[in-house]
Amino acid sequence: MPLDFIINPVSSRIKPDLQAKIDQKTKPLGALGQLESLALKIGLIQNTLAPKLTKPTILIFAGDHGIVESGVSTYPQSVTAQMVANFLSGGAAISVFARQHSLDLMVVDAGVNADLLSHPQLIDAKIAKGTKNFLTEPAMTSSQCETAIQKGAELVMQQHQVGCNCIGFGEMGIGNTSSAALLVHCLADMPLAQCVGRGTGLDDSLMRHKHDVLQQALDFHNGLIPFMVRRPTEVPVVQAQDERNQPTTVRPEPVEGLKQNSPDITEPLDVLATFGGFEIAMMMGAYLKAAELGMLILVDGFIASAALLVAYKLYPAVLDYCVFSHVSSEQGHQALLATLNAKPLLNLELRLGEGSGIALAYPLVQSAVLFLNEMSTFADAGVDCSTQS
Amino acid sequence: MPLDFIINPVSSRIKPDLQAKIDQKTKPLGALGQLESLALKIGLIQNTLAPKLTKPTILIFAGDHGIVESGVSTYPQSVTAQMVANFLSGGAAISVFARQHSLDLMVVDAGVNADLLSHPQLIDAKIAKGTKNFLTEPAMTSSQCETAIQKGAELVMQQHQVGCNCIGFGEMGIGNTSSAALLVHCLADMPLAQCVGRGTGLDDSLMRHKHDVLQQALDFHNGLIPFMVRRPTEVPVVQAQDERNQPTTVRPEPVEGLKQNSPDITEPLDVLATFGGFEIAMMMGAYLKAAELGMLILVDGFIASAALLVAYKLYPAVLDYCVFSHVSSEQGHQALLATLNAKPLLNLELRLGEGSGIALAYPLVQSAVLFLNEMSTFADAGVDCSTQS
Repeated sequence: MPLDFIINPVSSRIKPDLQAKIDQKTKPLGALGQLESLALKIGLIQNTLAPKLTKPTILIFAGDHGIVESGVSTYPQSVTAQMVANFLSGGAAISVFARQHSLDLMVVDAGVNADLLSHPQLIDAKIAKGTKNFLTEPAMTSSQCETAIQKGAELVMQQHQVGCNCIGFGEMGIGNTSSAALLVHCLADMPLAQCVGRGTGLDDSLMRHKHDVLQQALDFHNGLIPFMVRRPTEVPVVQAQDERNQPTTVRPEPVEGLKQNSPDITEPLDVLATFGGFEIAMMMGAYLKAAELGMLILVDGFIASAALLVAYKLYPAVLDYCVFSHVSSEQGHQALLATLNAKPLLNLELRLGEGSGIALAYPLVQSAVLFLNEMSTFADAGVDCSTQS
Repeated sequence: MPLDFIINPVSSRIKPDLQAKIDQKTKPLGALGQLESLALKIGLIQNTLAPKLTKPTILIFAGDHGIVESGVSTYPQSVTAQMVANFLSGGAAISVFARQHSLDLMVVDAGVNADLLSHPQLIDAKIAKGTKNFLTEPAMTSSQCETAIQKGAELVMQQHQVGCNCIGFGEMGIGNTSSAALLVHCLADMPLAQCVGRGTGLDDSLMRHKHDVLQQALDFHNGLIPFMVRRPTEVPVVQAQDERNQPTTVRPEPVEGLKQNSPDITEPLDVLATFGGFEIAMMMGAYLKAAELGMLILVDGFIASAALLVAYKLYPAVLDYCVFSHVSSEQGHQALLATLNAKPLLNLELRLGEGSGIALAYPLVQSAVLFLNEMSTFADAGVDCSTQS
């Protein structure tokens, strides 16, 4: 499954001119702090001294997760579909914040385990009704993974075609902090315990359970690593009957001569297919296409950053296009941001997802563009910039 | 100079109802982090489950400082008046950000050392053309200090009368980080070196000079402490003639039997009159009146927090009404915020003043109010809130 995105690193050709423009504004050098580096970044992405934000948009990718049946979340799976309805009726946090800042909001059904009613803001891109439980089999086939990535890319292309040059991705999926934790563990070389967080609000006991379930999943798939490397979908899954005659998935016998403690799965697309979610895979493709198109990308919290991590492992230049909206209070996000060399705009102890951090940080992005375009220079304003010594 | 503000602590009567309202919103408990405590605070200040922000306003107090002649700033004093003109013509950072968020912006001439042209957004409240140089005499008389405080109060009252219930105070005054450093040193029990920052951008050498000048000012006034306590304005100032026959201010002879290392000046209004600025005194009165009127107060950076510190020392309940917009990169602000038990919304390494941090944080304040009023509850949205265990 080769991906064929073409992502050029951002050129720094106009950096001196941009910096000069920033420095001529009526303020002490550097006095707008992080807004100045943000303005510089946006100018470089758009390759102009006068950047603009047009049709800023948030796509929320929603999907369900088979792992939820293993008790990793405090909320039932049905909440994913209920929250999609809530986004669409305008009552969710992201609905309120997107409205506040006139952000276009679209919800993408990447794989919700329900039949959703159609709605003008809902895009049907359902891959399947939820992923498989990765405790005993890969979350998705490599073909599903590829389809999800391409679909994410396609949706971003559509937004770009109607004039959007600034896009952010949110997510909704009960259980998806579990997927994200494994992605980060496998791809950012962080200990599992550091990647597992409280999600929607687990207590200590449930946190331990979540950690144990994820460790078990890792152990299971690590035993199968030679198959995974070839093609994650072709892992032989042995079906058996339990006592009540229900089919159940059992762990395949270890392959002769294979060490059980073989290395972690580390190939990004294998990790994504094995432990990911449809919303995460779609988001990963969305990041890549947005970077390919030279759009400004706003990154939300832990899950959104985990999806970006997969994209980054394959196309490091994707980061040139990313602004990190916030550090969430979900365990592991701070360390993950450090891995991505990211300096987020906000630290409000959010842990909601939905793209809510993006919407809350958006006015700061706008402020960076506005000061660059609208502030007067020392010369314009007749302000004496010759500092005394 | 007794002040007669009446500031009632905010009642926590409706706190349980507010918290319940927040907890019924469609999000995991606490998932909106600091926005939730902000919504709670605003609800308590307004004593309602449905707070509103009406006519949000920023008043920028501008004043000049005699200490500038001692070389504590890299910019000449004339920049204060030039920046006032820049605020009014819409080209300053605060002009841009206030416009972005539809905040009313008024500039108050508290004591600029220039004759300013009239303008619909400029309020003439000039106490004098700048303070005296506190290296050798008090910055202002106690009568000027009182007038400034009352004027600040009066201006807030006027804003309240036209429907404003949310107000923030910015400042402009070349040299005013020096005043603020001494206020914080004297009133927050912080070592001087921790209070002295780079202001508009001093290098190491100029930082040392600034520190030395401020230490010298402290030493000078500490020698006079018995006079200061009685009435700062009545400090006998000995006029002498220098060689070129210019009058110059010399340090008075130590009073017989007085220890030179007498305690620091610590009475808040004495500290304010001795080391403050007209814009700082006016801002202090503005805080107090806003709290008395039950308004939501947005606090800007280091100088704004120093002015609040003076208010707080006399009326601790003023803090009940304050939301701290940001921690600035000016040295001492973080420690000062800790003294005030403040948790700022932003940390963007700003060090501009003007109320710019307030304007940048305002959308978050608005978001807190909006989620409280507009988000649907679990019941409204038919979202299953019965967490699994």
